[in-house]
Amino acid sequence: MGEFDLIERYFSRPSKRAALGVGDDCALLAIRPGHELAISTDMLVCGRHFLSDVAPAALGWKSLAVNLSDLAAMGAEPMAFTLALALPAADEDWLEAFSDGLYDCAARYACELVGGDTTSGPLNICIAVYGEVPLRTAVRRAGAKVGDDIWVSGELGSAALGLRVRQGAVVLPDEAHQQAINALERPIPRLALGRDLRGIATAMIDISDGLASDLGHILAASRVAGRVSVDAVPQSQFLSRQPEALRLYCLLAGGDDYELCFTAPPDLQEAVQRAGREAGVALARIGMIEAGRGLEFENSGGTPYRFPTGTNLGGFDHFG
Amino acid sequence: MGEFDLIERYFSRPSKRAALGVGDDCALLAIRPGHELAISTDMLVCGRHFLSDVAPAALGWKSLAVNLSDLAAMGAEPMAFTLALALPAADEDWLEAFSDGLYDCAARYACELVGGDTTSGPLNICIAVYGEVPLRTAVRRAGAKVGDDIWVSGELGSAALGLRVRQGAVVLPDEAHQQAINALERPIPRLALGRDLRGIATAMIDISDGLASDLGHILAASRVAGRVSVDAVPQSQFLSRQPEALRLYCLLAGGDDYELCFTAPPDLQEAVQRAGREAGVALARIGMIEAGRGLEFENSGGTPYRFPTGTNLGGFDHFG
Repeated sequence: MGEFDLIERYFSRPSKRAALGVGDDCALLAIRPGHELAISTDMLVCGRHFLSDVAPAALGWKSLAVNLSDLAAMGAEPMAFTLALALPAADEDWLEAFSDGLYDCAARYACELVGGDTTSGPLNICIAVYGEVPLRTAVRRAGAKVGDDIWVSGELGSAALGLRVRQGAVVLPDEAHQQAINALERPIPRLALGRDLRGIATAMIDISDGLASDLGHILAASRVAGRVSVDAVPQSQFLSRQPEALRLYCLLAGGDDYELCFTAPPDLQEAVQRAGREAGVALARIGMIEAGRGLEFENSGGTPYRFPTGTNLGGFDHFG
Repeated sequence: MGEFDLIERYFSRPSKRAALGVGDDCALLAIRPGHELAISTDMLVCGRHFLSDVAPAALGWKSLAVNLSDLAAMGAEPMAFTLALALPAADEDWLEAFSDGLYDCAARYACELVGGDTTSGPLNICIAVYGEVPLRTAVRRAGAKVGDDIWVSGELGSAALGLRVRQGAVVLPDEAHQQAINALERPIPRLALGRDLRGIATAMIDISDGLASDLGHILAASRVAGRVSVDAVPQSQFLSRQPEALRLYCLLAGGDDYELCFTAPPDLQEAVQRAGREAGVALARIGMIEAGRGLEFENSGGTPYRFPTGTNLGGFDHFG
């Protein structure tokens, strides 16, 4: 199977919204008046972002979902994506399952494939997503203000625990096993929530490298400090039963959560909660923004949190 | 050096035109009213698209230039690009030279880096470019009409010969050596020409996989046939002195030319020539569009061209 056959066979479902989709030198998209284009790109490498034995359908889903999560974190609505793919070989079973998972996610979030590139090479998946956001409403990282609340959506830490399950380092009961694997392999981009938080959230980021690291980006960009109550960070029941160092690592630094972390003024707490209800996502207020620099964790009593020796909160660094 | 330091150090020159550049979850771009967004992406893999010992500055230039060439082929004007980069290690000398070459090309064609991703992994460079084109003026592949002339810009085959020079398979005199290497490593995207051909060219493509293959895409998309006079295809003096099978392979199928191949009605020949003069690029009329399907090569006398046994005109197929 040649390169053009491969594209024709697995990656050429017709586009409905784009002015021009797969098959020319460029794709063409119309941006609605009064809107800006939001762009994000992620490159996924085998052994670094996914295990070599991951199910290709799950990989297809996740490859797009993690990009959509970046659109969610700006409050942007998905329009389209491009896919560049390096493959060691044109394995038809793999391609069929991968493209099915990819199109599942694309259909679920109304984001259509409009172009890309395929080549032979070590497995590498590079997606770029394109969204629209009304002018001057995109939620950036730099807007957190002293006194703002710090919020997160969903539960953190399950995906990081799921990775340890896949690696054989942790064993969970059946139902918890499946939940942790789902969290790892089928992340849900919080697009409706992100959109509903436009005009409410002052700063927002999606949690890909772990809460400590990603909230740290908001604090640095906004030139403020943050104080987070560890006990307020939402976690699954099965994570709460893990040994303390592992639990804290997964919860605060494991990453791959793709939940949203955002800040909002305290007088908008009701509006925040309404946005969460409308999007069908639980929200938790985990701390607040203060003057200064840096991130501190505390107990529910307000004293500095004592992490077990060796707890690693550094977050995921691809060259660390 | 961590991932964020690496981005900060080598890939964070300030953007002037984008509403938001490197450093948030998404980049933000405003598209001018009356314009569409044109998007293209290319993934470059070591050993497949470039030699492992290529100078990193040349690689930086070419990585962006080949993407810009896709914008040129639609008649789009560059605005911005994103860069996703997998690196075996954070080699500072390599990164400095690569980013210098990349920014050279970006500055030359007013296309700014607005975001991206870096990770460790086998060397892989994935760029996506974003351009603007006035509504309904983008030149697609599917518009060639029976009776149209077929044109190409510049000279073909030099880059393919340059690859053989780099591989040690061909030796050229000094000046020709440098010209062939430049053609291979510093391709010039024909952006001004592509823009000037809007409203004149009926179909257009950039020649990345070789004239036979890429003109073939125009013919297939337009559902027409093409007849090309081999002697009319422009080549460099040094290519004309190569053995016939090598010369024809480089000229018609070698690829990596990044010249434009386009069709236009014969009554617009003067407008085509004017566009070439204004863009400072030589243009050659190499054949014409006919009813039917497929591509035929002929002698200047009009008889079918007799290729030497073993001449490969298949073009570059990444899974061939």
